[in-house]
Amino acid sequence: MNWEESMDAQGESAQADLRVFSDAEVLGMETALSAARQGVRGANPLVGAVIIDADGTVLAIGHHRGAGTPHAELDVINRLLGTGVKRDLSAATIIVNLEPCNHQGRTAPCTQAIINAGIGNVIFAIHDPHAPAAGGAKTLRREGINVRFGLMEKESQDLNRQWFVAVAAGRPFVTARLAQTVDSRIAAADGTSAWITSAQSRQDSHTLRARVDAIVVGTGTIISDNPRLTARAADGSEADHQPLRVVMGLREVAPDAAVRHQNGPGFVQLKTHDPATVLAELYKRGVGHLMIEGGSKINAAFLAAGLVDELVVYLAPTLLGTGMPALNDLGISTLAHAQRWEWDGTTTGPVERLGPDLKLTLMPARVPAVPSAESD
Amino acid sequence: MNWEESMDAQGESAQADLRVFSDAEVLGMETALSAARQGVRGANPLVGAVIIDADGTVLAIGHHRGAGTPHAELDVINRLLGTGVKRDLSAATIIVNLEPCNHQGRTAPCTQAIINAGIGNVIFAIHDPHAPAAGGAKTLRREGINVRFGLMEKESQDLNRQWFVAVAAGRPFVTARLAQTVDSRIAAADGTSAWITSAQSRQDSHTLRARVDAIVVGTGTIISDNPRLTARAADGSEADHQPLRVVMGLREVAPDAAVRHQNGPGFVQLKTHDPATVLAELYKRGVGHLMIEGGSKINAAFLAAGLVDELVVYLAPTLLGTGMPALNDLGISTLAHAQRWEWDGTTTGPVERLGPDLKLTLMPARVPAVPSAESD
Repeated sequence: MNWEESMDAQGESAQADLRVFSDAEVLGMETALSAARQGVRGANPLVGAVIIDADGTVLAIGHHRGAGTPHAELDVINRLLGTGVKRDLSAATIIVNLEPCNHQGRTAPCTQAIINAGIGNVIFAIHDPHAPAAGGAKTLRREGINVRFGLMEKESQDLNRQWFVAVAAGRPFVTARLAQTVDSRIAAADGTSAWITSAQSRQDSHTLRARVDAIVVGTGTIISDNPRLTARAADGSEADHQPLRVVMGLREVAPDAAVRHQNGPGFVQLKTHDPATVLAELYKRGVGHLMIEGGSKINAAFLAAGLVDELVVYLAPTLLGTGMPALNDLGISTLAHAQRWEWDGTTTGPVERLGPDLKLTLMPARVPAVPSAESD
Repeated sequence: MNWEESMDAQGESAQADLRVFSDAEVLGMETALSAARQGVRGANPLVGAVIIDADGTVLAIGHHRGAGTPHAELDVINRLLGTGVKRDLSAATIIVNLEPCNHQGRTAPCTQAIINAGIGNVIFAIHDPHAPAAGGAKTLRREGINVRFGLMEKESQDLNRQWFVAVAAGRPFVTARLAQTVDSRIAAADGTSAWITSAQSRQDSHTLRARVDAIVVGTGTIISDNPRLTARAADGSEADHQPLRVVMGLREVAPDAAVRHQNGPGFVQLKTHDPATVLAELYKRGVGHLMIEGGSKINAAFLAAGLVDELVVYLAPTLLGTGMPALNDLGISTLAHAQRWEWDGTTTGPVERLGPDLKLTLMPARVPAVPSAESD
């Protein structure tokens, strides 16, 4: 935050109070947050936007659908103007759970879209902590738009808390994907693992691949499975967006390994076992969303380091008893130190049925639970 | 099946065809099956019953709620007579997915309830394979009631297929309960396990305990956890119905072990490692529903032997990495031999939220899935 923004924030601090917002504005922010939850987690935060008129009537609701698609502000403006009704929006208010962005990324700045639409009032929950996108409030005020913020700040912070963690750390948002049996095995005793989960789960996994900027696996997975790490449709055709294919570890990736010879943004091997080093290097290369696809050692290394923001578990209704566990040592020796997560999932909820399997989505828990002490 | 029943079945075989049932009767059986699914699995099968009048109007719907509660036929009759309207039911039809029972168990024979209500017609899906309860059709006909069967036989067989397996084998219906982390650990590396799952999950587990006739654990669990194995309410008070407390294994159960000193039908140690021996012995003692509460070795022994009819998994949103796995060796070395299950769950569906945890319910799969061979 630079000096001017800091003054900006101070000048507005008296307004960062629920009492200065009308019931219609509070309801508008609640609606924006609900709309935000219809999006997908990743490089971008979950953002929803609502436009209300002077008497509080909701004119349109929009949300962001993931990196590369219109931001929530543009989405809601498009929906409103898409109705074909030309109207004076100088008395209208756009309500959004994050400060409108101020930079040209894959999409145009939201501030410009708001100015072009002639919307007279902006309410947002929290400032954008992402330096290149910040400064939206200042730009809007300079155009004579009335800007207020601080409404439902806590809920908005909470909704995207792992995204804020990643932004603050200057690293990609990290999704770890496990495809396991009910007893958490990812391969049988003899190493067979094709396939633990159903065709539907694998297709969903390819949809995830098409959404992320990079996928990382260990050298062990390359040697045992020789994966292509591309995003493909059910008919085998490649998705438009392909991830960077990353292998971490010291062992040599064979010249004829499939991972080397695919379309898309390319292949890179990072000769390290340290997850933080991998994240720093990939962030420098512009990776905003990384997916970890195993095996056990890589999964455990990122989880043990607290560097996973989202955990996707494809759970097949099968049992193996023995075989390769999904995870390896997390450095946890006693139950009180167990990693606490909570069920998450936006568009589809935390449990989705995929053919015979379940897809479970989790995010790190807010507050560690305190174990009770009664006897059984 | 004795000679008379066999003749009975043959004489009716021409009617075991959908074409001899009216649309209203087919719809009635579909409704009965839906109602049946509102029950709980265990010593008794899932049964629903519907009464329709001569023009096909549904007069009442009922179902069985688990061992010790009224059977579906009595439930639906009680619901109809409970309305206070006295009516001639000689033209009415009761439709039920299992042959009305013919014996005095914990409840009066259903045949007698139907006769007493003056219902003139009975349609059921399949004969009761349980010898002491069989012969209902003959008893009803002797009273001049018109009896037909074979309607939606396949669906009715499928709904209770594991119950039919248990009855045919002359053994209890077996529920295995796992309380585990997402990575399928039931204790941390240092042995701590109180508590993996939430208070809500543990309370649900006590509800299960109050429903079964017996609980079995291994001697290892007795030594490490010293459980009481009683069914208790959240306030610690004991449920009205308590299970028989069973320990299997060769190691001595200490004279002061908690499991020896509780109210209820008592404690027994079976000095064997063989699940089939345990089931045979408990069936002789009148156990119709057994719950397995671990540890890993006991869980795996029953599962490896194919002697689990229902699997209940309390899944805590936590990770441990290492520690005691929920299961042990199932004798499976390659993925093609993985045990196939499917999501089940009647009243609440296969996935239930219990506080921070999920409760997953599974039953053995009907048909083994064929693994596909594409590459990843």
